[in-house]
Amino acid sequence: MTHRLKLGIAGLGTVGVGVWKLLNENRERIFANAGCELEITAVCARNADIDRGIDLKGVRWVDNAVELASSDDIDIFVELIGGEEGIAREAVETALAHGKHVVTANKALLAHHGNELAAIAEKHNVALNYEAAVAGAIPIVKSLREGLAGNNVSSVVGILNGTCNYILTKMASEGREFADVLSDAQKMGYAEADPTFDIGGHDTAHKLAILTCLAFGSRIDFNSIYLEGIEAITQADLKAVHELGYCIKLLGVAIRTDSGIEQRVHPSLVPLTSPLAAIDGAFNAVAVEGNYSGKIILQGAGAGQKPTASAVIADIIDIARVNALYPLGREVAKLAPYQRARMRAHEGGYYVGLAVHDRPGAVAAIAKRFGEQEISLESIIQRGTDTQSGEDAEGGGQQSVVLIIHETAEAALREALASIEADGHIADRPRMIRIEKTI
Amino acid sequence: MTHRLKLGIAGLGTVGVGVWKLLNENRERIFANAGCELEITAVCARNADIDRGIDLKGVRWVDNAVELASSDDIDIFVELIGGEEGIAREAVETALAHGKHVVTANKALLAHHGNELAAIAEKHNVALNYEAAVAGAIPIVKSLREGLAGNNVSSVVGILNGTCNYILTKMASEGREFADVLSDAQKMGYAEADPTFDIGGHDTAHKLAILTCLAFGSRIDFNSIYLEGIEAITQADLKAVHELGYCIKLLGVAIRTDSGIEQRVHPSLVPLTSPLAAIDGAFNAVAVEGNYSGKIILQGAGAGQKPTASAVIADIIDIARVNALYPLGREVAKLAPYQRARMRAHEGGYYVGLAVHDRPGAVAAIAKRFGEQEISLESIIQRGTDTQSGEDAEGGGQQSVVLIIHETAEAALREALASIEADGHIADRPRMIRIEKTI
Repeated sequence: MTHRLKLGIAGLGTVGVGVWKLLNENRERIFANAGCELEITAVCARNADIDRGIDLKGVRWVDNAVELASSDDIDIFVELIGGEEGIAREAVETALAHGKHVVTANKALLAHHGNELAAIAEKHNVALNYEAAVAGAIPIVKSLREGLAGNNVSSVVGILNGTCNYILTKMASEGREFADVLSDAQKMGYAEADPTFDIGGHDTAHKLAILTCLAFGSRIDFNSIYLEGIEAITQADLKAVHELGYCIKLLGVAIRTDSGIEQRVHPSLVPLTSPLAAIDGAFNAVAVEGNYSGKIILQGAGAGQKPTASAVIADIIDIARVNALYPLGREVAKLAPYQRARMRAHEGGYYVGLAVHDRPGAVAAIAKRFGEQEISLESIIQRGTDTQSGEDAEGGGQQSVVLIIHETAEAALREALASIEADGHIADRPRMIRIEKTI
Repeated sequence: MTHRLKLGIAGLGTVGVGVWKLLNENRERIFANAGCELEITAVCARNADIDRGIDLKGVRWVDNAVELASSDDIDIFVELIGGEEGIAREAVETALAHGKHVVTANKALLAHHGNELAAIAEKHNVALNYEAAVAGAIPIVKSLREGLAGNNVSSVVGILNGTCNYILTKMASEGREFADVLSDAQKMGYAEADPTFDIGGHDTAHKLAILTCLAFGSRIDFNSIYLEGIEAITQADLKAVHELGYCIKLLGVAIRTDSGIEQRVHPSLVPLTSPLAAIDGAFNAVAVEGNYSGKIILQGAGAGQKPTASAVIADIIDIARVNALYPLGREVAKLAPYQRARMRAHEGGYYVGLAVHDRPGAVAAIAKRFGEQEISLESIIQRGTDTQSGEDAEGGGQQSVVLIIHETAEAALREALASIEADGHIADRPRMIRIEKTI
């Protein structure tokens, strides 16, 4: 042990306390692997008076994260505050500009300002590490940025949000509706009081934006991500897709296409035979396809105090050992501009769920609309009124019609569905879920 | 692009040609990620006259790998010759001693001489990278050494040999016996003409020895690995275990126990619900359990020209970017001595298959022997003579008796089986397969 690295931790919530505990509990292994001692010299958090179950004696308490970021008594600034703007951003920028290495778990910050922050880190010749920002303890940042660095990647497909996967898994296994499972998840702490950020897909999109950059060597571009959440998924959908050999997962997908890179986050039908179909509950998984590596899949705990702390400490050890690569794998100036593939040009298979008025000719009229767009149907399941849909507003019955559609351009499908809606044969808006077969 | 790294490749077999092709095909991405140009300046192989489908014009041909290893015109020596002794070892030692970085895919070399070679690399302040030595393109070396560096690891369990997994998968899916499937695998190039090295578990053991070191921070100790191959697995076993909810995989297992670290390679019963049960054909997978990360599983192509080349190039890019860590994660002098846990102290569940003479009291006598050792039986499947075992030497019938045994010490089980054999109620040696429930 010839030297000692001093850490300043900003944010002592779940993850901050986890990092503290890990550093104490695995002290011996961490110091041996780091090749030096690591010491938390200063911390800051909103409230000094909370009992966090850790002993802060001998550690300097700083009230302001920005002040901590520029302190002389730290070598590495560990940002565990969160949020894409405000204090987290200001503190990280300050730390980098003062020549401090930065380790962060802040996916929102990276997704929105990663290009700029990486450039600042480069300029000051310091590290900006963020393994904890994506998929908890799963070393996916390192695997994409380093382990698969020689591959031309064609796709990255991930289950990146534990809350959504937990809800979808519970809905499927217990036959309960979305709102019901969400409410339970909130009570059990698996979902936030305001769950929009998770269930709307924003959290997945933040992570996807980072992975896309690393996989394709293009600038981070969060705003180009096509986004749908899981709020509209129904029991009827889950049952129908299961019968057809699929489950539903919220996926983050980045695919290289002829027209650019597709980045999308939405519920997807995944074949039950796919390894991703087996990822249940709060677990995460990422599948990467490289032209030499073939398909590599990583899975594990995607969140939580301990897994996230595991990734933060790995990033710190990487700094101690001097892994001197650029934060985004190459110089920011050498990243390609992100070229967006338009979603309407997306080609794939689709599940379509329709609540059809129980009238003569309705189904035939619908089939005709698909035919006009040259869309061929792989399978159709048609059922009489079920207990959930009941009688419709016109007093007539409804039929649930579920369709699986072959490879088709999304634009054509949207066209067909618009015509079907305009024809007035359906009682609700059509439900469309993309089928993901790349994994 | 401010500089250029010169590569010398020793060995132009499948992998060497793969590295050459990858470097050409993904040139742009590789150079961008490496931050510099990479150029193959010199090569050596046994035969200069073979058409390998690559253009060696302008590349210096060297007849001797050791000469190449000390050449002035290379910065990185890429050893793709193979073999634990002889020219590969001498060349790698020479390269390191001459201050050249080394990248190798040679698992046998690392398993036998990794400690010594890492020490030489340290002394000369150069890299010794070997991602390609374990599980092809799967970044498991990097994940263990770096991504999970902060964890106290409790277990590493892997399917590490594609040939064995291919044979076991085929045996299970097609109902054919070992010798039959092996012969087919040889015809199709999935198994070597002399398959001993793969099917005997040696290849898996080489890889396991490396992973154990990285996972537990102990010196590589190949010779301490308990080793059984898959040659004795029968259709009868496969069918019986499937009925009981298991499949059979050749696993490399390293587990921390109270008495030391268990390292073992043998066929194992894996619950059909385990993610490892789904790894079919020539694929590899590794599950690592860390005290903070939880269980992380990586899977993908474990061998072959392209996946192996992917790992070799990743290692080269790591050198170009200056990832300055010690080859074995920490200084060799700081690795703990490997402390072996004795297999007879191993505790676990077991499958036992017995061909029992069809005589009154035989099964009762066997059950008594287990009882004497206080071994409780979880399930018993007893069947009359089947077509495979036929009549026994004494002219009487045989019964197939299959037992699943609860957690017990291996020493007690071996004792019971020895007594059962001595009693003379069984027609063949007992077949014992360990159950792996850590994954």
